Amino acid sequence: MQFISDNAAAAHPKVLEAIAASNRLDAPYDGDEWSQRLDDAFSELFETEVRALWVSTGTAANCLALAALCPSYRGIVCHRDAHIEVDEAGAPGFFTGGAKLILLDGEGAKITPETVAAACDGIRKDVHQVQPAAISITNATEYGLVYHSGEVAALGKLAKERGLAFHMDGARLANALATTGESPADVTWRAGVDTLSFGFTKNGGLNAEALILFRTDLADEIEVRRKRSGHLLSKGRMLAAQILAMLEGDLWLDNARSANAAAQLLAQAAADRLVYPVEANEIILKASDEECDRLQAKGFDFYEWGPGQIRLVTSWDSDAQAVDRLAAAIAGL
Amino acid sequence: MQFISDNAAAAHPKVLEAIAASNRLDAPYDGDEWSQRLDDAFSELFETEVRALWVSTGTAANCLALAALCPSYRGIVCHRDAHIEVDEAGAPGFFTGGAKLILLDGEGAKITPETVAAACDGIRKDVHQVQPAAISITNATEYGLVYHSGEVAALGKLAKERGLAFHMDGARLANALATTGESPADVTWRAGVDTLSFGFTKNGGLNAEALILFRTDLADEIEVRRKRSGHLLSKGRMLAAQILAMLEGDLWLDNARSANAAAQLLAQAAADRLVYPVEANEIILKASDEECDRLQAKGFDFYEWGPGQIRLVTSWDSDAQAVDRLAAAIAGL
Amino acid sequence: MQFISDNAAAAHPKVLEAIAASNRLDAPYDGDEWSQRLDDAFSELFETEVRALWVSTGTAANCLALAALCPSYRGIVCHRDAHIEVDEAGAPGFFTGGAKLILLDGEGAKITPETVAAACDGIRKDVHQVQPAAISITNATEYGLVYHSGEVAALGKLAKERGLAFHMDGARLANALATTGESPADVTWRAGVDTLSFGFTKNGGLNAEALILFRTDLADEIEVRRKRSGHLLSKGRMLAAQILAMLEGDLWLDNARSANAAAQLLAQAAADRLVYPVEANEIILKASDEECDRLQAKGFDFYEWGPGQIRLVTSWDSDAQAVDRLAAAIAGL
Amino acid sequence: MQFISDNAAAAHPKVLEAIAASNRLDAPYDGDEWSQRLDDAFSELFETEVRALWVSTGTAANCLALAALCPSYRGIVCHRDAHIEVDEAGAPGFFTGGAKLILLDGEGAKITPETVAAACDGIRKDVHQVQPAAISITNATEYGLVYHSGEVAALGKLAKERGLAFHMDGARLANALATTGESPADVTWRAGVDTLSFGFTKNGGLNAEALILFRTDLADEIEVRRKRSGHLLSKGRMLAAQILAMLEGDLWLDNARSANAAAQLLAQAAADRLVYPVEANEIILKASDEECDRLQAKGFDFYEWGPGQIRLVTSWDSDAQAVDRLAAAIAGL
Repeated sequence: MQFISDNAAAAHPKVLEAIAASNRLDAPYDGDEWSQRLDDAFSELFETEVRALWVSTGTAANCLALAALCPSYRGIVCHRDAHIEVDEAGAPGFFTGGAKLILLDGEGAKITPETVAAACDGIRKDVHQVQPAAISITNATEYGLVYHSGEVAALGKLAKERGLAFHMDGARLANALATTGESPADVTWRAGVDTLSFGFTKNGGLNAEALILFRTDLADEIEVRRKRSGHLLSKGRMLAAQILAMLEGDLWLDNARSANAAAQLLAQAAADRLVYPVEANEIILKASDEECDRLQAKGFDFYEWGPGQIRLVTSWDSDAQAVDRLAAAIAGL
Repeated sequence: MQFISDNAAAAHPKVLEAIAASNRLDAPYDGDEWSQRLDDAFSELFETEVRALWVSTGTAANCLALAALCPSYRGIVCHRDAHIEVDEAGAPGFFTGGAKLILLDGEGAKITPETVAAACDGIRKDVHQVQPAAISITNATEYGLVYHSGEVAALGKLAKERGLAFHMDGARLANALATTGESPADVTWRAGVDTLSFGFTKNGGLNAEALILFRTDLADEIEVRRKRSGHLLSKGRMLAAQILAMLEGDLWLDNARSANAAAQLLAQAAADRLVYPVEANEIILKASDEECDRLQAKGFDFYEWGPGQIRLVTSWDSDAQAVDRLAAAIAGL
Repeated sequence: MQFISDNAAAAHPKVLEAIAASNRLDAPYDGDEWSQRLDDAFSELFETEVRALWVSTGTAANCLALAALCPSYRGIVCHRDAHIEVDEAGAPGFFTGGAKLILLDGEGAKITPETVAAACDGIRKDVHQVQPAAISITNATEYGLVYHSGEVAALGKLAKERGLAFHMDGARLANALATTGESPADVTWRAGVDTLSFGFTKNGGLNAEALILFRTDLADEIEVRRKRSGHLLSKGRMLAAQILAMLEGDLWLDNARSANAAAQLLAQAAADRLVYPVEANEIILKASDEECDRLQAKGFDFYEWGPGQIRLVTSWDSDAQAVDRLAAAIAGL
Repeated sequence: MQFISDNAAAAHPKVLEAIAASNRLDAPYDGDEWSQRLDDAFSELFETEVRALWVSTGTAANCLALAALCPSYRGIVCHRDAHIEVDEAGAPGFFTGGAKLILLDGEGAKITPETVAAACDGIRKDVHQVQPAAISITNATEYGLVYHSGEVAALGKLAKERGLAFHMDGARLANALATTGESPADVTWRAGVDTLSFGFTKNGGLNAEALILFRTDLADEIEVRRKRSGHLLSKGRMLAAQILAMLEGDLWLDNARSANAAAQLLAQAAADRLVYPVEANEIILKASDEECDRLQAKGFDFYEWGPGQIRLVTSWDSDAQAVDRLAAAIAGL
């Protein structure tokens, strides 16, 4: 019974159907009818004119955006545990040509205007020290915490004051929005976000992420960077079709609600063990080595997450029975 | 009626079936059962131990290989019309960190030991001029010509003598082999090739290419570079499954033969107009602007290819009727 | 008797005196009194407000400018024999992060609006082909030819029309201006040039070049890039002092005139052998292998410059006797 | 009275004499007689065969070495306050193509086998996290602490066990050796160091650093990288001559001893305020804002170094009277 990650779950049947339905000759790259519908679809969702580009991975989405927002000789402010720092093999350095990640502390991988300001203020304004050019946050965070629109807006305000661009890694934005009930617009561009990696792969897609550009002027550059980094698929319709299927009837929200609901079941069972409140589909809880072994012995798979902690991740298709059994097993530890 | 490119054709039904069949939770990245079978499958096909990595695009396959073969401060010898020079948005410069493409002339985008040697000999052996580190050829070439194993071996011999690595862009290797009937081994590692981009997307796949490493010692580095460039899919099984489906029962060869057969029909109809012999699935032929207009008026789509030339490309699923009608239309010009 | 290059000649005594005179503790980097005078000194020389940054080499000057003018994913139009293409070890690729040099033909390493326009027109306006962002010319060229202000202005006009930035490699600009008698302003910013590498090392300096920014908005970025590439000397006053000494009393022009005068003596002696008119301090002339040997046997050092050609370079301190003897030797071949 | 840094002190008269003495035409780049003597001179000093390359700045020396030791997709372990992290504008990221600095804590900017091992052990051995390739230490450190040969050897042993390369930033190595009395060999290659930036600029040179390669096999690559980064001076003899003058009669050691002696005078006066023991020519001491103001009011210039601390740096030519007066002023606070 898998609680390791949502990144390797099956794709939703409607996603596969959409891929099959788009399997016919059309214009290559993003000239096909599906790709051509993305701008409008996301402009509607976000209640403003956006440009939307498909890519195959979250790493690509994040780093294409960051390369456009931060020149090689400047830096990106983010949390010390951000995915872009910890789990992308240095991809931001590769895509930007060596920009620096300026790392902040903060509970649950969240950053605040205060921690950002303090980090920036600690940098001498001279040519010897790398000056920041952008802020990047992950929503929901790597520990399953959610930024509410007010929190994002406070960061957006600071970004504007300091002349910093603002990127959001939304690999699990769907889970965040399913929790807060806020609108996509409120937590992004209305809060000052310039670019968003909108994740679908972890949420029922097969291999599709949307890079949303609220600054539409960035599109030309990023389209070139996408090609140059090998991320322009000749049959891009297969990515666009997945994304459109996820948007159709708000499947993306339904899927995220399912994953979150499963997480809440586990959170209740583990209430006295939670390291962080469970706000999306990730549960970090305390468990001794011996307890960890007992759970594994019962057939549950998950990450050991530092000493004395484990991480459980639910997904859109988490098996209800397996969730119940895991909840019971945790309660019975 | 599309003769623009094979890159946007539909995927073969068996490829879609394979994607669907692999749509279940498994280990992420390339830990799943499909990905884990690639090394063996290609080792059998190539009659030697190889490492085989899936990637989503030919640009990624080419450039990941070239980055491992050529340090940032050296150069890659290739034809002036090579895809890596002309149509990848400078991706080799991005992936290598600024290596130089050293460009050769040659009929039909082919290079020879003589042209390679002459280019290398023209470079002063000092720190001021960029020294070559690798050779890259495209087989079949961008004009549809085929390198026979003897030609490749002659280049491989020169590469070895000069201490150069040797890469083959095999976006249409299937078409080349369908024509020559040679074995995959003979035209690659037995001829001195170190790394091969083995293309499936143009030949019935959806978005899958295999990067074949005959030098298996390169695998660790290239796996890191794949992740770092955003090309490690979390549900990589969907790429592996496509490739395995293409290998199954030599579907890749069948598909290439279909495309080539369609090309031969057109070649016969255009015999007196051919710029190059038709050895794969691309036909470059002479046509005046007026003739070009007439073909387009009849509903045929294709690239105008320089002054007075057009390019036709057939694919695995080229419509037999459309081919016949185009053949007739050319003959009737 | 050395006619190999002007790049290794002795520095002028006044340059050494200036270094010695600046040898006292002052603010580090470019905070010292000499460095602080550069902007004004060059603004006066160029009759407009400029920013002027010292660097140690022409390669650094050229590539810092080009990195600011051309993003990593675009290209720089230049002559096939330009120093940046041929003799800087791929430095433009390193500094820009992989931008492409788009190479033009042209007699004597000169480019024209026609050749630039033709090259640009040959590039498809899509994401697959590298789009140009800048033009770079060398004045005087690598073959000793001079761009007059009218020629530069024609290129500058085209650059503006096409949205291209315009850089001049002026490693031997002094020699060019000594010949034409034109003003520095006329051949640079008034003709549309954005950035200029103004060379002093080949003209009596020790190791000092001035990077002149007619677009003063580029200064902040280039100052960071200078530091980041290791080109910000802590005792930068030693570079500034050299440059100021060269400007003092137009020493730079006097030195260039001396070199040019020596070149003219040789040009007259070799009138029937000249491959190009001698417009600066480089002489390319035809000489058989046997003639070449005879000159070398008499103690003259120079480059063999392709088959049947040799290159002679005079410098500010070319020994008059040696020049006379070489002129006689050539005349007597 | 300047105690801000040793980096902007005057050059030693013998260094200027050497530059003047080398001011005559010779082979360009590093073909001249001075440059050609460096390998031998340093091989003798280090009691083993080394390759020695001049460069103009410490940033260039460090980063050329690091680029050869660490591929773009791996990391360099160093202290959080290392010069390469804090004060080189991200130059390591530029020269390596985006390698990551893996940052350690430690008193006085020193790292130990324990902190290095802990950092490496904290990195998962997969493609998602950046794997270390090299260690870099600064000796003397950015806070004026010295690594003894035993400490270096312990790091060198760990480096070897872990397959990591080992670089030493020796911008103030002279000061360290003047304190310990150890041999250059013992604290470098005998302790496992692969490459050394041997600083002269801060110690009486004008703009010259020697990059010492104990792994002589790295020389070819680094020579190319030096050219490619614009650091190959055409009149390189002016750098070689400075370095040779510094080696002559152990001027480098004499200068370092002078700077250290001045530092000891200040250390004694500030004994109860020292943040770190004074082991080289840097003194970090506690001083309230008000005390700081009083020192500045008396004409002493220095860096405020974080809250409640100031940094004093002495140099080879620190004025004895000024040192005495500062010592008295500190004692009298």
